[in-house]
Amino acid sequence: MTTEVTARPDDRVLTTDSARRTTQHLLKRVEHHLRDFLTAENELWTTVDPRATVPVTAVAGLIDSGGKRLRPAFCVMGYLAAGGDADAPGVVPAAAALEMLHACALIHDDVMDASGQRRGAPTVHVTHSARHRDSAWRGEGRRFGESVAILAGDLALVYSDQLMAEAPSAVVPVWSELRAELIIGQYMDVAAAAEFAVDPELSRWIALAKSGRYTIHRPLVVGATLAGSTALGTAFEEYGATVGEAFQLRDDLLGAFGNSADTGKPAGLDFTQHKMTLLLGWAMRRDERVHDLVTTPGHDPDELRDLLLGTGVPDDVERHIAGLVERGRAALDDAPMDQVWRDELGAMALRVAYRKA
Amino acid sequence: MTTEVTARPDDRVLTTDSARRTTQHLLKRVEHHLRDFLTAENELWTTVDPRATVPVTAVAGLIDSGGKRLRPAFCVMGYLAAGGDADAPGVVPAAAALEMLHACALIHDDVMDASGQRRGAPTVHVTHSARHRDSAWRGEGRRFGESVAILAGDLALVYSDQLMAEAPSAVVPVWSELRAELIIGQYMDVAAAAEFAVDPELSRWIALAKSGRYTIHRPLVVGATLAGSTALGTAFEEYGATVGEAFQLRDDLLGAFGNSADTGKPAGLDFTQHKMTLLLGWAMRRDERVHDLVTTPGHDPDELRDLLLGTGVPDDVERHIAGLVERGRAALDDAPMDQVWRDELGAMALRVAYRKA
Repeated sequence: MTTEVTARPDDRVLTTDSARRTTQHLLKRVEHHLRDFLTAENELWTTVDPRATVPVTAVAGLIDSGGKRLRPAFCVMGYLAAGGDADAPGVVPAAAALEMLHACALIHDDVMDASGQRRGAPTVHVTHSARHRDSAWRGEGRRFGESVAILAGDLALVYSDQLMAEAPSAVVPVWSELRAELIIGQYMDVAAAAEFAVDPELSRWIALAKSGRYTIHRPLVVGATLAGSTALGTAFEEYGATVGEAFQLRDDLLGAFGNSADTGKPAGLDFTQHKMTLLLGWAMRRDERVHDLVTTPGHDPDELRDLLLGTGVPDDVERHIAGLVERGRAALDDAPMDQVWRDELGAMALRVAYRKA
Repeated sequence: MTTEVTARPDDRVLTTDSARRTTQHLLKRVEHHLRDFLTAENELWTTVDPRATVPVTAVAGLIDSGGKRLRPAFCVMGYLAAGGDADAPGVVPAAAALEMLHACALIHDDVMDASGQRRGAPTVHVTHSARHRDSAWRGEGRRFGESVAILAGDLALVYSDQLMAEAPSAVVPVWSELRAELIIGQYMDVAAAAEFAVDPELSRWIALAKSGRYTIHRPLVVGATLAGSTALGTAFEEYGATVGEAFQLRDDLLGAFGNSADTGKPAGLDFTQHKMTLLLGWAMRRDERVHDLVTTPGHDPDELRDLLLGTGVPDDVERHIAGLVERGRAALDDAPMDQVWRDELGAMALRVAYRKA
């Protein structure tokens, strides 16, 4: 077991091992907090009517199904890197709130994208459309399933807010920014896909809002704010923007060329949905043939995929991702934090940029 | 102009006129607060991209289209009845938050109910489905319109929370209860309609959650909590339950027999949507013919409406509404509040129970 020892100004010693243990310990507490919160809500609503627990169960099902827990991880690491006390109460509910908000985003996204699978299981709206059909209930099954998903997402949004209200109120401004950005970013994504806006700047803004800010920059700032620090804002912004772009490009690569068993989502969905991804914007600008094919109504998704492979897009993107990770790590060089946290956030950048699913 | 004078313990004099003026003044400030908030958000997002303002504009359009503002009114009256200072800052954003939450509920409800009109104008999802069609955009128009509505509703939910965060945090527990109840109540409503659950107790619980609690009881308690009082809880609960049931029955009567020019909604929508309303539950229990007709798949909504009229349901319900209003007013008799507020809340009970739209 490695124990790189770093002397801190106050002569306490922080090692990679202890930093990692503290992070893992807090993230475990986040899991317990989420579970306890949802169990209590489930018990509360069971007393009203068994039906009343359906939206709670839908949220709990998604939370339990795993996921990368990136937002809680960045929140906890931002907190600790900014010198937050691992035993103080605020960071655990705040990190739990970020994951709960993400549950809302995923449940509503899956309706908007008409996605059938999430984390290898049927999505909320698909599950409940099937329940409607199997029970031979009245009305339209699609509408019923989507209604349950809309309400389950709403409930997750309210729960996320309830969790965040357990943290000190200093966090309110960044929490508000993060949520509005997420929603407006989603709208821009939906609108860009509908308009098929061939606008690389727009695709970049969407990636910045949804990945850079929502997933990385703002969760780090939530953590740092809870630790009472504002000194890391600029470094976290640059780190978030670059690593977020790498994250989004990886997401696009996996969506385009990954396999569905790894990602838990159908392969090539972005193509069939005409999503103007960061990857596609890039490929369209660099090759006329790609541009011509994607702007042809009713083009074949498989043909597009083959063309991207044939024109060497994946290798080019890999090079760009490596550069982004480098820039993200460099952004922390002069930031006022312990070297151990610079290393840990560097490792996170790699984990995010080179994930398999 | 009437000026019933009531002596208060501290010898200041509160008149019906001054109570009403103070209420109206605060409600006017709530309108300004909502407008200023949305204008600032609109300006903020315009700088990013003109598209980014679309969800903000959708929310603002609904807020601007009027409505009864019942929840802000109950919040402000609960606050003043509990002795709150009209010049203190908390109650205005809290009342604005309640109206903003209601905007979310309406926008999402209209998707779930497939409603085309709201307050005499096309609903958010219909407006944006039409925009999609007129622009010949890609993908399915229905899904696009519903996606915009999902996101606009999410944004209103986040905004409502941002507004409530401007009020003292004492309000967090009742605010959390109110929102979860609203969402679970909506789900129960959707599920009961799909199952066509002939369960009068269930219909009553739904009416209690959605009207009694969400519209009346909890907004009153939000106000009283901001005034630092817990003494009115029991009175407000009973007042909310009875006046809320009257409100829901009026809603059902207007939905069933009202005219669409008054209500801004298509007439008889609850019938065509197989909604298990409080009114219908009542009618089914009291007349076998009603029960038989509504449980016949594909029954004619017009035939059902005629049968309800023929069996005297509207008159019976009117008598019941009158009794509920009486009980609601009586619930305030021994509550520790100035007689002026007892009278004002009595007048609100009548306004709610006998509204025309």
